[in-house]
Amino acid sequence: MPKIVDHDARRRELVEASWAVIAEEGLEGVTMRKVADAANCTTGRITHYFADRGALILASLQTSNFATSKRVSEIIASDLDVYEKLLGIAEQTLPLDEERRIEVNVWLAFWSAATVNKVLAKENDTRMDEWFAALLPLVKEVAPNADAEHEANLLIGLINGLGIQVAVNPSRKNRAMARKTVERHLTKLSTTTKKGPLKERPLEA
Amino acid sequence: MPKIVDHDARRRELVEASWAVIAEEGLEGVTMRKVADAANCTTGRITHYFADRGALILASLQTSNFATSKRVSEIIASDLDVYEKLLGIAEQTLPLDEERRIEVNVWLAFWSAATVNKVLAKENDTRMDEWFAALLPLVKEVAPNADAEHEANLLIGLINGLGIQVAVNPSRKNRAMARKTVERHLTKLSTTTKKGPLKERPLEA
Repeated sequence: MPKIVDHDARRRELVEASWAVIAEEGLEGVTMRKVADAANCTTGRITHYFADRGALILASLQTSNFATSKRVSEIIASDLDVYEKLLGIAEQTLPLDEERRIEVNVWLAFWSAATVNKVLAKENDTRMDEWFAALLPLVKEVAPNADAEHEANLLIGLINGLGIQVAVNPSRKNRAMARKTVERHLTKLSTTTKKGPLKERPLEA
Repeated sequence: MPKIVDHDARRRELVEASWAVIAEEGLEGVTMRKVADAANCTTGRITHYFADRGALILASLQTSNFATSKRVSEIIASDLDVYEKLLGIAEQTLPLDEERRIEVNVWLAFWSAATVNKVLAKENDTRMDEWFAALLPLVKEVAPNADAEHEANLLIGLINGLGIQVAVNPSRKNRAMARKTVERHLTKLSTTTKKGPLKERPLEA
């Protein structure tokens, strides 16, 4: 009887090993050798599933991102009001606990690698487009008179930027600052725009 | 006559070599060996100036950050109006051209290394505190009725987050989005708060 290999489970094991290495040693730890050591296997098994280090980092990000997206989708599908949904999504993406800190560390490793890898850079734009598409309807609902595209871009930038500061040093102070900053921003967004459109300075062409 | 060595110039050469390596190969390229190759010297010379790789990355960030800070200080000391100052600072810190892209790439390499290095993590908090102290008086001036601390934290998070997206892929679209998002945010901040304090939802304790 032939040996049955669960390839998805194998890939998953290797991806999880890469997360462990990123959490322990950062991006520079992600070598085929170190991930093999963490997975207690040969580098040959890794190259069987991932052509090179870039492919492994990409899979690592995609799998981590899938976990985040699943939590975000559950919030979107819930019966929370739209303000609570946006706040919940921010809380699920900011590195406020250890699990989510590892996810943001994976993002940081990915971004750092993507600055010198066009395939990864393109993947980042795709991920940001997905984020944008997910947030846009919520922003329109919470603030019908706001410029929704602007507000969605702002929210993505804000969460990514605050997330870094917390991931680098997840002190109580940084975690509280990040959460409070997003919460206050969402509160302001949801209350001011109910009063009607803001009068803005005309923008340059 | 003894040979006169300009140690500051030597350190500077090595730091600039590390930037070149970061720009070309990302964080993972920053090994003593590769930086020595880029500086056309021995690894011995590098270890004479920098105890280890962490010290070199820290110096790399500090020197790069010094260049940014100098431009920001010049804007603050100028006779531009406060809105223009804030916009100018954002433009000087977002990676809108190649020089500033290298600076943000250095930040990304630094952040990625800092997630697993407490000395670098602490340095990041210090840098963010400096940023906060520089922006706070400008925010108070542009939006006297706003919660200045909140707005300064928001602006730092926003610039860091948008900066990553542009640094990873400095496409025209990403650059335009980042600049426009910050500009529109600053316009809104400077106009809405002149009308008086916003009525916000009470925050949780």
